[in-house]
Amino acid sequence: MPGQISEDNETVSVAIVGGGIVGLVLAVGLLRQNIKVKVYEQAKGFREIGAGIAFTANAVKCMEQIDPEIVTALRSSGAVPTSKGDETDPNDYLRWLDGYSKMQKKDEPYYQRMLYRLDAGYKGFEGCRRDQFLESLVKIIPPNVIECRKRLETVEEMCEGKVRLIFADGSVEEADTVIGCDGIKSRVRSLLLGENHPASQPGYTHKVAYRTLIPMEDAIKALGEYKANNQHYHVGPNAHLIHYPVANRKFVNAAAFISDPEEWEDEKTVAVGEKADLIAAFAGWSPCVHNVIDLFPEKLDKWAIFDLWQYPAPYYSKGRICLAGDAAHASSPHHGAGACMGIEDSLCLTTLFKEVNRTIQEDPAAKGHALMTAFETFDAVRRTRSQWLVNSSRRACDFYHQPEWAEKDKWVKAQTCFEELKDRSHKIWYFDYEGMVDDTVQGYRENVLLSDGSGSEV
Amino acid sequence: MPGQISEDNETVSVAIVGGGIVGLVLAVGLLRQNIKVKVYEQAKGFREIGAGIAFTANAVKCMEQIDPEIVTALRSSGAVPTSKGDETDPNDYLRWLDGYSKMQKKDEPYYQRMLYRLDAGYKGFEGCRRDQFLESLVKIIPPNVIECRKRLETVEEMCEGKVRLIFADGSVEEADTVIGCDGIKSRVRSLLLGENHPASQPGYTHKVAYRTLIPMEDAIKALGEYKANNQHYHVGPNAHLIHYPVANRKFVNAAAFISDPEEWEDEKTVAVGEKADLIAAFAGWSPCVHNVIDLFPEKLDKWAIFDLWQYPAPYYSKGRICLAGDAAHASSPHHGAGACMGIEDSLCLTTLFKEVNRTIQEDPAAKGHALMTAFETFDAVRRTRSQWLVNSSRRACDFYHQPEWAEKDKWVKAQTCFEELKDRSHKIWYFDYEGMVDDTVQGYRENVLLSDGSGSEV
Repeated sequence: MPGQISEDNETVSVAIVGGGIVGLVLAVGLLRQNIKVKVYEQAKGFREIGAGIAFTANAVKCMEQIDPEIVTALRSSGAVPTSKGDETDPNDYLRWLDGYSKMQKKDEPYYQRMLYRLDAGYKGFEGCRRDQFLESLVKIIPPNVIECRKRLETVEEMCEGKVRLIFADGSVEEADTVIGCDGIKSRVRSLLLGENHPASQPGYTHKVAYRTLIPMEDAIKALGEYKANNQHYHVGPNAHLIHYPVANRKFVNAAAFISDPEEWEDEKTVAVGEKADLIAAFAGWSPCVHNVIDLFPEKLDKWAIFDLWQYPAPYYSKGRICLAGDAAHASSPHHGAGACMGIEDSLCLTTLFKEVNRTIQEDPAAKGHALMTAFETFDAVRRTRSQWLVNSSRRACDFYHQPEWAEKDKWVKAQTCFEELKDRSHKIWYFDYEGMVDDTVQGYRENVLLSDGSGSEV
Repeated sequence: MPGQISEDNETVSVAIVGGGIVGLVLAVGLLRQNIKVKVYEQAKGFREIGAGIAFTANAVKCMEQIDPEIVTALRSSGAVPTSKGDETDPNDYLRWLDGYSKMQKKDEPYYQRMLYRLDAGYKGFEGCRRDQFLESLVKIIPPNVIECRKRLETVEEMCEGKVRLIFADGSVEEADTVIGCDGIKSRVRSLLLGENHPASQPGYTHKVAYRTLIPMEDAIKALGEYKANNQHYHVGPNAHLIHYPVANRKFVNAAAFISDPEEWEDEKTVAVGEKADLIAAFAGWSPCVHNVIDLFPEKLDKWAIFDLWQYPAPYYSKGRICLAGDAAHASSPHHGAGACMGIEDSLCLTTLFKEVNRTIQEDPAAKGHALMTAFETFDAVRRTRSQWLVNSSRRACDFYHQPEWAEKDKWVKAQTCFEELKDRSHKIWYFDYEGMVDDTVQGYRENVLLSDGSGSEV
């Protein structure tokens, strides 16, 4: 558990809005740097729907840098590799199959043409249930740090160098800074940019998703032993299906994504879906895909996928207010790396608050300047990469859904996408987080020296 | 000059179809490996139009690996850095400017908003006139290697392990193998794939180009001293303008690229262009762009840009016939790296023929098997990367021509492309050609052992 907070004048206080994974991981990191942290979560508690979430090996290393206890929390919440994790399999993890072709082989009942495979390394991804990880994180955060049922209404920067948070229940809180970790529909983002700014509203990606959990024995009957136990993408025109084992291989998590040329009119992003829509989207596909689709329930949720692609945030901070995670750069899920970007953000911010502490130990009057410099550095270090992910995730799904997969003549063209997918995956998986930490420290130190406390340039 | 060729039975003979840069560079490389080489060029000679061509520093290093005399030939043909080549400028070479905005600054008459800059390194690109480089290459090739006025009609694989080339003039030549370096409209490609194969015809990229050479003093008046002396892209909706100094800074080479939603109906890819088309495409753009467009002549050529994007070649070799350079993977010019891919191809093939020589020194009967293995290895090593470039070059131009550049609200989105452009440029500039050589040797040796001379697997 992070150390006790000293209440002297040199302490920095941070209000984190949103108690999702990024908010809690950041809270742990800041507490470890002796920052006074409060997390305000609008929900009643942390028992959410049991959706799965996966982290790259690189993101797990970032967690380790922030605080090794976060990794312990992840593992104690039942995280397992999302694939067989076989050290002897040189191409463990990601395989893309031709989902469309009906080609079959007599001696291989589950035959599908493999288009590409990519080795994410041993334990390249670890997956867990989102609610269980949140619960484990709550356990390593001291009592009184997290307050639930706190829906943010507005934020005011005070002239005495504080930020005031006003909540829907009428309560008022103060802190030196506010970090919005409040997800894709971030209230902090719309306060930062203005409610009429286009980036205050996420945009529809024109993809919908249907998910289900399939008992392993049924998955094996549908896909064969090997495919059921390893992550696979089945790609084809205007849709794809992805599945990987979860819950100690008791279940296979399956998700079908379908292109939707229409606008999404509903206020809510989850609607009632029909299995018939799924069957129609995958009509004429490979028998293995049909076998999996058959295992989806008759009535199921239809998730509209939104992101911040079309109108990205032009900046992630202003004064003493900052955005991190999905609040800053909500992405579609096609690289399985949305949360990983938020973990990288948290490592960057934890690094910065360590620097802020150093600055104000030397000069307590520089607190405001140090905090604003920290947030400006965060924007400079993080915005390019995290907005790249939003773009890249869209591009990945476009590749999976290429209409050319159905046209024999254009097939070679469609296949040339994999070199790019490899590069994009590697950019995510092999991120030089130590280099990011160095750049963060260097950028902060240069900027904090460049101008004096009053903000005028030297 | 490469060594004299010995005429013993262990010598391999290669017919190179096409005496462009890739064909001649490959000829020099193969001659250095004591291969018996003939180059068949359909033109009368090597005095082509004086278009400029540039090579990345990486491609120059590949030339050095093939034969240092190629680099000498390049430099002796007047190649100079395409930018100022200022070692003290940390961001030498590539700058992207907002070409669309009319925003001006009183004290900076040539002000344009800079969108991005990328350091290609000192001498990151070297440019020369295509005809002059070809002339220099011809000088380092022994007499009787190159035959002009040889238009290939067809190629026949003979049962005695030879390939027969039949030319339009009725002459017949024989060699152990044929390598088609005959460019985007490659005859060898259509013979390899079949004339009705979609990849036998290049496709229209829906971009046209207009080029001119501007005397440096006029370019300085139009753009200011700094921009005239350094490579810049001016990007905006549906068009872009690029310019860089050439000919020892006596001229600035300027090229305007315009999106064209129509099909290209003309049989020829060069048509008569009108300056009025240019003026219309850049109407309302920045004053600096107008200044440059004004300097284009009234009558000028309109170049339709074709490539092999939509229908890439499914394989680069079949039996004893192989494709290299544009014949294999003709790209649009937006990364300035089309010829560089052909130089990488030549390094790969030179490496392979060194290996072939080794194999047949041990076992002269293995010649046919060794050659086919070499070509299969070439396909495996080169196809992915070179087809990636074709895709990437299209993507780069799409970024430059984003309609969003004209929409204030979508500007931030448009700008997020630069992280991807950086990655794509780095993938070209920092290619691990030594790794490619290692992979080539290893791939060949594994495959040549896998099967015996008769081709049956062990």
